[in-house]
Amino acid sequence: MTGNDFVVTPWEVRGDVDYGKLIEKFGTKRIDEKLLLRIKKHSKELHPMLRRDIFYSHRGFDRALTEYENGNPFVLYTGRGPSGHTHLGHLMPWIFTKYLQDTFKTKLLFQITDDEKFLLNERLSLDDTRDFAYENILDIIALGFDPKNTEIFLDTELIKSQYKLALKVAKKITFSTIKATFGFSDSSNIGMIFFTSIQSVPCFLESERRGKDVPVLIPCAIDQDPHFRLTRDVAERIGYPKPSLVHCKFFPSLQGSDKMSASSQESCIYTVDSPSTARKKIMNAFTGGQETIKEQREKGGNPDVCSVYQYLLYIFEDDDRKIKEQYEQCRCGELICGDHKKYLSEKVETFLVRHQENREKAKDRIEEYMVRD
Amino acid sequence: MTGNDFVVTPWEVRGDVDYGKLIEKFGTKRIDEKLLLRIKKHSKELHPMLRRDIFYSHRGFDRALTEYENGNPFVLYTGRGPSGHTHLGHLMPWIFTKYLQDTFKTKLLFQITDDEKFLLNERLSLDDTRDFAYENILDIIALGFDPKNTEIFLDTELIKSQYKLALKVAKKITFSTIKATFGFSDSSNIGMIFFTSIQSVPCFLESERRGKDVPVLIPCAIDQDPHFRLTRDVAERIGYPKPSLVHCKFFPSLQGSDKMSASSQESCIYTVDSPSTARKKIMNAFTGGQETIKEQREKGGNPDVCSVYQYLLYIFEDDDRKIKEQYEQCRCGELICGDHKKYLSEKVETFLVRHQENREKAKDRIEEYMVRD
Repeated sequence: MTGNDFVVTPWEVRGDVDYGKLIEKFGTKRIDEKLLLRIKKHSKELHPMLRRDIFYSHRGFDRALTEYENGNPFVLYTGRGPSGHTHLGHLMPWIFTKYLQDTFKTKLLFQITDDEKFLLNERLSLDDTRDFAYENILDIIALGFDPKNTEIFLDTELIKSQYKLALKVAKKITFSTIKATFGFSDSSNIGMIFFTSIQSVPCFLESERRGKDVPVLIPCAIDQDPHFRLTRDVAERIGYPKPSLVHCKFFPSLQGSDKMSASSQESCIYTVDSPSTARKKIMNAFTGGQETIKEQREKGGNPDVCSVYQYLLYIFEDDDRKIKEQYEQCRCGELICGDHKKYLSEKVETFLVRHQENREKAKDRIEEYMVRD
Repeated sequence: MTGNDFVVTPWEVRGDVDYGKLIEKFGTKRIDEKLLLRIKKHSKELHPMLRRDIFYSHRGFDRALTEYENGNPFVLYTGRGPSGHTHLGHLMPWIFTKYLQDTFKTKLLFQITDDEKFLLNERLSLDDTRDFAYENILDIIALGFDPKNTEIFLDTELIKSQYKLALKVAKKITFSTIKATFGFSDSSNIGMIFFTSIQSVPCFLESERRGKDVPVLIPCAIDQDPHFRLTRDVAERIGYPKPSLVHCKFFPSLQGSDKMSASSQESCIYTVDSPSTARKKIMNAFTGGQETIKEQREKGGNPDVCSVYQYLLYIFEDDDRKIKEQYEQCRCGELICGDHKKYLSEKVETFLVRHQENREKAKDRIEEYMVRD
């Protein structure tokens, strides 16, 4: 797991992530033109996150499409570890997941791993993780997933349906494998050691329920890949098809590191932040600009390391022409960071106002989405 | 866990077990005269397994009695790993548990660890362990536990009620501790590594349900002590009282080793064996006798290593005077192995006939005892 300069595990992202190297290390595949064309056949247009190489890697996405084309549609599976409030980085893969649901008209299983986050964080009780789970669920619902085709569940509330499948997985995984995959040590707690079995379950749940092989496609950030690499190794040995994955890069931090960390209040925008708080955070964000406006005009900025540009690229600027323009104008010094921040800020504020309205409405709709034992 | 000449873990008993040394190794306490007198205060008479030093060790039994005497009665908790049919060795601690339930008029939680046995045995499926579980449950019910005061459950069927408590335990136990306690290695599967958390749960379940500290007393064979040593270490850190334990020695094998192994058909008598099968097994049993009757008459036998004597001592001879007589008559050569085998055989056959009748009746009574999520 440890590379020369960066580390990526489901619980830690450190250093400057080289996404190309990560593909080699993890042994995944790049999403290539051929695959994009296949996806496009089913979609009015490719999602910007595909066009912009943000969802950039996969395992067996092509096989999931083949199954779909042969009349055996895949189920989508994604998740959330409820260790705090939702921030925009969390929304990114969910927005893409909604695109996939809308495009392929398919069922979505949304696992909330309250067990994992309790086990991982000394300071969190099970009440805390449950409370965060229900806060996060409001954000999920606010994005507009199809309630008839979406099942959201907390692990602790659907454990009876999940436990036997988790046991089947756990029986096939040794501690050696867990150590090598996640970097766990002898001082890891036995709950965390077992946990990956639970995260595997939704890959098999629908096959188990329907009594036939149901393909599964998992949109997630690439740090989750190690879990599902294990799942894929185990799948056929316990009688289920391997799940397919489609991986995204990490949403940028406003402070300029690689994965937005929910632990630093200033590095991310929460969905419950007021628009004015969001504006302030953006105004304080790290950019690729020069120290003075004069210098910026002369030398230009570097959008590739700029969190403001990245925010627009990842989520907030749908228009390919406009994002390209901003890139070039930044490069040549025409676009000043202050103006770019204002531009982003308006988009984020507009988003937050609408999202928070939807989030309020979601409070009455939770039961349309939840499944429990 | 490894001593000079013997090994005792919940999954392995090997070598000649020195029960005195085991007390030192595990750090438990001998049941002494003082404790026996305290138990006797509440009981018409001491159970033979107490009088004969078969239930011989404990942790905090005295504290459980103090709580009881102060009006806070303990709950009993014992269990069964359903990896095969029930044999007489399994019944031994259950018979004692029934004595405790009758004496103290207290609730019993009976955990059937179908998850554990599935994880442990490559050859067993979850259907197998469930089927064995329900076979074993017939034997439990046949012993006559009070249905109003007994809850029997399979882990996979009560996991929703157990999972959160298991997580609380698991969070406090590291892999180092598991390695040191059970002798697990890097090649152990992650389900088995986690499992001890599940076995801990019934120690806390009743406190959780009632919202107050409920003492728990666990009658079990001493090989189960390592699980509960961990539980006791964790208990107060997660806000529950430490469970108390009372430990028995291992029921003898008919073939003369220490723990009756369910894997060897000839070394034990199953509750589903026909009386004639049981008789044959007893007739082929290992004894402490001499090679010829003549030699036996001259030198006498050794009841201390004799499985026939041990069977009578542990379960089938209630009468202290008679068991003492048999011991002495064997020692001095008056009692011949063949006669002693016949004597035991009649008792076992009588027991089996009655038990199998009760076991048949139990088939209609399962639901009186079971709890599920």
